Amino acid sequence: MDNFQYFNPTQVVFGKNTIESIGKNIKKDKITKVMLLAGSGSIKQNGVYDKVVKSLNSSQIEFVEYWGVRPNPTLVHAEEVKAFAKANNIDGILAVGGGSVIDEAKSISGGYYLDSIWDLFGAKVQPKAALPIYVILTLSATGTEMNSFAVLSNEDEKRKWSFGSPLVYPKISIIDPSVQATLPKRQTANGGVDSLSHLMENYFMSNLNNEIGLTLNEVTQRTVISQIDNLMENPNDYTARANFAWSSTIALNGMTSIGMLGGEWTSHAIEHALSILNPEVAHAEGLSVIFPAFINYVYDAKPEIFDRWAANVYGIQNGLEGTEVMKSKFKSWSSPTTLRELGFSKSDYPEIIKCIEEYGRTGRIKQLSEESFIKILDLAY
Amino acid sequence: MDNFQYFNPTQVVFGKNTIESIGKNIKKDKITKVMLLAGSGSIKQNGVYDKVVKSLNSSQIEFVEYWGVRPNPTLVHAEEVKAFAKANNIDGILAVGGGSVIDEAKSISGGYYLDSIWDLFGAKVQPKAALPIYVILTLSATGTEMNSFAVLSNEDEKRKWSFGSPLVYPKISIIDPSVQATLPKRQTANGGVDSLSHLMENYFMSNLNNEIGLTLNEVTQRTVISQIDNLMENPNDYTARANFAWSSTIALNGMTSIGMLGGEWTSHAIEHALSILNPEVAHAEGLSVIFPAFINYVYDAKPEIFDRWAANVYGIQNGLEGTEVMKSKFKSWSSPTTLRELGFSKSDYPEIIKCIEEYGRTGRIKQLSEESFIKILDLAY
Repeated sequence: MDNFQYFNPTQVVFGKNTIESIGKNIKKDKITKVMLLAGSGSIKQNGVYDKVVKSLNSSQIEFVEYWGVRPNPTLVHAEEVKAFAKANNIDGILAVGGGSVIDEAKSISGGYYLDSIWDLFGAKVQPKAALPIYVILTLSATGTEMNSFAVLSNEDEKRKWSFGSPLVYPKISIIDPSVQATLPKRQTANGGVDSLSHLMENYFMSNLNNEIGLTLNEVTQRTVISQIDNLMENPNDYTARANFAWSSTIALNGMTSIGMLGGEWTSHAIEHALSILNPEVAHAEGLSVIFPAFINYVYDAKPEIFDRWAANVYGIQNGLEGTEVMKSKFKSWSSPTTLRELGFSKSDYPEIIKCIEEYGRTGRIKQLSEESFIKILDLAY
Repeated sequence: MDNFQYFNPTQVVFGKNTIESIGKNIKKDKITKVMLLAGSGSIKQNGVYDKVVKSLNSSQIEFVEYWGVRPNPTLVHAEEVKAFAKANNIDGILAVGGGSVIDEAKSISGGYYLDSIWDLFGAKVQPKAALPIYVILTLSATGTEMNSFAVLSNEDEKRKWSFGSPLVYPKISIIDPSVQATLPKRQTANGGVDSLSHLMENYFMSNLNNEIGLTLNEVTQRTVISQIDNLMENPNDYTARANFAWSSTIALNGMTSIGMLGGEWTSHAIEHALSILNPEVAHAEGLSVIFPAFINYVYDAKPEIFDRWAANVYGIQNGLEGTEVMKSKFKSWSSPTTLRELGFSKSDYPEIIKCIEEYGRTGRIKQLSEESFIKILDLAY
């Protein structure tokens, strides 16, 4: 079993009727004024916004609002919000939404005292201070509600990169799975694929002597699959929402990746290239296309781990066959499984590969060359 | 799935050659002088003490030492240590040892600014400040290295009680499983029983709709069992030590008890009575005797959860039969399974029951009367 460190100070408040506690929870930290950051307005339809405002008011937390965070959040928008936040003298950020809103909040928080938010990315600068972040999660998928990472798109440079700092762990994340009952099926399926991808990026890097790490990860994958299956049938199933929501959080909060050497993350690197080149591609849709192809390509470098995974997650003895079962599962959730479905053609390969190589940090299970990426893209085509 | 909160800010540094980092880790927090708290001296035999001293010296952390924490640590000793600590003007406590040393450190820390440490116990007083605690774990069993609870024995009052406060989460816990290779088999087995008991106290309180919580807990129980089996064969098996060590930590750090309503804890209450009345009884030995009897007695109040447990942990369909398999497992580790082995006779029942009733907080799965306790003790006799 390989050495590891575990640290995660985010406090989670999980379950029905928990959003109502946000005001009190912020007040405990002696915060008096926050910026509420949100997306396109779905939180006004599902009642979350009203609950948040009521709770902030009753705890006498002053707040200003900034809207318009979009999927695949951008540096340009984050800088606009940062300027607004500075002009309004806030003490903290309250992110109300899914992964995009939270990641943009983390970027603003970590970059608040820097000249440029982008300095955080590509590990150029480590922040020395940050604004405290509070979260109301409305879409379980990315796991960002309980970790120290964020992804942002720099559209000018065509780079979708990430940064991490212990300063941007949310202080408190409130997860009320019942507010996710009204999500479109597509977003639920995307949450499932995204969570499975996080689990797999870590799992495949593990050595086989990590019994506790592997089994925790396997049962989380199994729970994601069974609960997304349930939600495809019945989006109002609270039990399935709740079981999936926690599985999604622990898929990327460190609990299911102990002793896994920091994970593989090549599929994520390839996906980031796809969604920076075509921002209409949802992160999970890119992963749904790339991950099976990636496994097929690297299988022979580490067949034992892929075989164990297939057996314990999908009940089939061979890793390559397991990948086919996973692909069928993704299809049954109406997730795309080919690059063509995402609007790419083979003539896009050079630009995709340029983005992957700039991102770096790929090929830990098996060294990957330009030719390797062409083969993976072909397998995904 | 029931609502829950999760919060655990302890940083864990896990694996081989990690003790060497203690000085740097303490220095990061701007601590300049600690009290090293330890037990009877085994850390001088296994090399841990020398590594700690070297690391503290090379990071220029000043330290004083206090020895003599015993199994089932006592209030009298804790007060002595507190007086010594105050006289020496320390900024933090470095607990080097197993659960007893860490629990005594937490008691001193939480009670540092109170008139009496015992005020913490029985939930009389919540501390408003505490000394920071650092941990080098040398025996995996109680899980105290990554939680906010401590147990202490007040021998004058014949009370073995617990307290909890978020202020006593260790700042950092270093877990190097290789230092446990020299433990006597009895202590290894006790660690296994103790960890399983923590998992079960939580598991049995869960509702069945908590798929992710139950499966995480089940695989942790399975890993404890398989790794203790391995260690009974080969105490030097690092893979088994490491897998067991992390399983033991997460058995009581919140990760395996989400949605479990705070757990049951009756077996612990009964055990605390046994070991305050006979301090020669190791905590895990009391649990090894009581837990099977407890399950047998309360089975009919919640058969579905016990049946699921038996199926998924021991591969047998019925909870009562599962209990028999567990008992055989404990016996195979040379753990006691009868009250008589612990030196009790039926004439001790009244005193045992008095202690249990003073402790309170029992009987969540099934209401328990004096007669119930007699029946449980009879089943364990």
